[in-house]
Amino acid sequence: MPPAPLSRSGKSRRTTDSPITYFIKKALETPGLVSFAAGLVDEGSLPVDEVRAAATEILSDPRAGQTALQYGSTHGMPELRRQVLDLVCGLDGVNPSDLNLTPNDVCITTGSQQLLYLLGEVMFDPGDIVISEAPSYFVYHSLLQSHGAEVLTVPMDEHGMDVDALDALLDRLRRSGDLPRVKVIYTVDYFQNPTGLTLSLERRKRLVEIAKRYSTAHRILILEDAAYRELKFSGPDLPSIKSFDPANEFVVYTSTFSKPCAPGLKTGYAILPPDVLAPILHLKGSHDFGSTNLSQHLLSRMMASGAYQAHAEKLRTVYRNKRDLMLSALESEFRDFPAARWTVPDGGFYVWFTLDGVDTGPNGPLVPAALEAGVLYVPGEFGHVPDANGHMPKNECRLCYGVATEPEITEGIRRLRKACAAVAAGKPKKEPVGV
Amino acid sequence: MPPAPLSRSGKSRRTTDSPITYFIKKALETPGLVSFAAGLVDEGSLPVDEVRAAATEILSDPRAGQTALQYGSTHGMPELRRQVLDLVCGLDGVNPSDLNLTPNDVCITTGSQQLLYLLGEVMFDPGDIVISEAPSYFVYHSLLQSHGAEVLTVPMDEHGMDVDALDALLDRLRRSGDLPRVKVIYTVDYFQNPTGLTLSLERRKRLVEIAKRYSTAHRILILEDAAYRELKFSGPDLPSIKSFDPANEFVVYTSTFSKPCAPGLKTGYAILPPDVLAPILHLKGSHDFGSTNLSQHLLSRMMASGAYQAHAEKLRTVYRNKRDLMLSALESEFRDFPAARWTVPDGGFYVWFTLDGVDTGPNGPLVPAALEAGVLYVPGEFGHVPDANGHMPKNECRLCYGVATEPEITEGIRRLRKACAAVAAGKPKKEPVGV
Repeated sequence: MPPAPLSRSGKSRRTTDSPITYFIKKALETPGLVSFAAGLVDEGSLPVDEVRAAATEILSDPRAGQTALQYGSTHGMPELRRQVLDLVCGLDGVNPSDLNLTPNDVCITTGSQQLLYLLGEVMFDPGDIVISEAPSYFVYHSLLQSHGAEVLTVPMDEHGMDVDALDALLDRLRRSGDLPRVKVIYTVDYFQNPTGLTLSLERRKRLVEIAKRYSTAHRILILEDAAYRELKFSGPDLPSIKSFDPANEFVVYTSTFSKPCAPGLKTGYAILPPDVLAPILHLKGSHDFGSTNLSQHLLSRMMASGAYQAHAEKLRTVYRNKRDLMLSALESEFRDFPAARWTVPDGGFYVWFTLDGVDTGPNGPLVPAALEAGVLYVPGEFGHVPDANGHMPKNECRLCYGVATEPEITEGIRRLRKACAAVAAGKPKKEPVGV
Repeated sequence: MPPAPLSRSGKSRRTTDSPITYFIKKALETPGLVSFAAGLVDEGSLPVDEVRAAATEILSDPRAGQTALQYGSTHGMPELRRQVLDLVCGLDGVNPSDLNLTPNDVCITTGSQQLLYLLGEVMFDPGDIVISEAPSYFVYHSLLQSHGAEVLTVPMDEHGMDVDALDALLDRLRRSGDLPRVKVIYTVDYFQNPTGLTLSLERRKRLVEIAKRYSTAHRILILEDAAYRELKFSGPDLPSIKSFDPANEFVVYTSTFSKPCAPGLKTGYAILPPDVLAPILHLKGSHDFGSTNLSQHLLSRMMASGAYQAHAEKLRTVYRNKRDLMLSALESEFRDFPAARWTVPDGGFYVWFTLDGVDTGPNGPLVPAALEAGVLYVPGEFGHVPDANGHMPKNECRLCYGVATEPEITEGIRRLRKACAAVAAGKPKKEPVGV
């Protein structure tokens, strides 16, 4: 006899497996498949030697080794917090004091993902509103579903989030009496996951001005997810949105060492207002009372020696080459395919590929055609939320060149073209996938 | 002008800083203080050489190094999950198949603390009930407060949780119609934090039988927190409560590498029913999509080489010596102090010290007297929840010999005696602390 059923929480009942899990699983199961789906980093350039050198240094010194292997603190290693602050302020060309910041305004988390989760826990009750870009980071949307938050979106163009549309949306919400539910404006402002687009300088300033202007009865926070910032290989150097928040009141800046260094160290960080930090640390105390201490010591050592900075510089070349390869493969394969267009990222891992008139979704014809041709992408619709009429764009693909090797990139785009040609010719070979 | 106030979630408003934070901070601020307060591990025995050897092996092999530095999975490294299952089943003297278990029933978490949190998220809505031992693990109580769960307790004696009292409590809850709110029975069943007490063999069986018997309309889970199990240095080998759940339905077993290996690797694990695991992994996907991969590879390597097992064996001697030293210091300092008695743990880090008629709480006279004498403990009341009349025991102390050195243990107990003598003589030297 089966046991009595579990009586799970409302939050658990709201939480489902991410649809992207199916795609990752498919990629792992299919030998020879070129995956542009998984958002993994380039394997060959992982800093194996650099981490070994840092580990050897730390663990050859009994005192340093013991400190790294003991419990750390919930807040994170003080020296690493100082280094993070210097890193970010360095990118912004300011001193920490210009932004009213000290290392106490930094916290270390289990990847930037944990910060996204914790901020959600601190801010959202079911029914609260988050405003994000359309499209936006898939996993953040799953997380908001767990918290019961409602996602409203504003469109993007080549300059990133359309801040006029944001202003108009907030105005509508104010008039409908829904402004009290608006807690956070979320943006991946550098080489966005999934579109590769970047928020322009002028819009960065406007974003802070808009958040302030609507923060009359309660504060609306901007969550600036700068995960890809250090992987910039072209275009202008843009200051963070955070740099337009000189009193440290409105912007939560988060980033990670996973992209510019190594995901296996699972270390991210945030710079945030003190009255947001305190409740985050209280909750983090219950989650884990501190992220992996050894990883923090390794990263701090690599930053002190310059190995981290040199590695990030190397990665910029690695990913520039991969981007160039993907763009030139797209150019040669899809030149004569007028339905196709794509973005040109200045950094990060992602090209956003649009196919007019082709259903790229999990139940459309392109997914099975692509699998048959031996390539996989993430359907763009996973990054969208349906509008009031249940509609969303279904003709986009996220193409990630992070983990694919250079020969795979060329071959994968060739296969994608083959799949598109098959669909255009109206001959999908397999049943829809039905995720 | 200050910015508009934050509008935080109900969960955040329920979450406060752990009162123990004050004590940890006090310990760090006071030079020369002997701290029996912090639950840290022995520093000198941390496996610095063992971790260095594993790191060197992994990171000298580019392929192995890249795998360890890439993203892992939410579920955890497959090989480590297999090793964990073999470890636990080995301690229980059974085969995984005897308990209907495979490595897929194991998940890897950011310390066992994260498992405690995630299980809470999956199971509790505000107003749900958790039954725990009195006293119980402080941090777990904080976590339950975040989730809005109500803690009901059953007393302990020298055989651990009083299961007859548990049965009677569940019967009362059934009669009052409150049984549907009961989700989890929590026990730290080996050398409990904070009392050092261990659940007897007979009660382990009874506990599962009771949970099953009351699981008529919904399942009541047992959360077996075995964090200290591998640090056993005397007494009988006791099988896990999990081993009395052969169909893998009622017991969530969690433990950690922090105690028998190194907290700095921040890796714990759980063995649990599939219908509990799945929703935990869905939420963990939103928290962090996997704990630190490098730590998992280091631990897997140390388990494969035998370094982990040899180190845990060494630790059992280290902590036995420390326990013996604390017990003999207590014996010599408090022999003539009839108000004092204490537990004799068979493993772990904790002695539970009771002082009849002395208020050991944060606002009582002993805390300032102890600080003046140069020693710190955790007031026992932090492990209790008030009963229906608001009462709880206020004459107990948790004494942790984990991080104190051997000379500090002897000196710390001497100072504690001095503080007790001062309080007994009615001359507290300072104002109450007022946490």
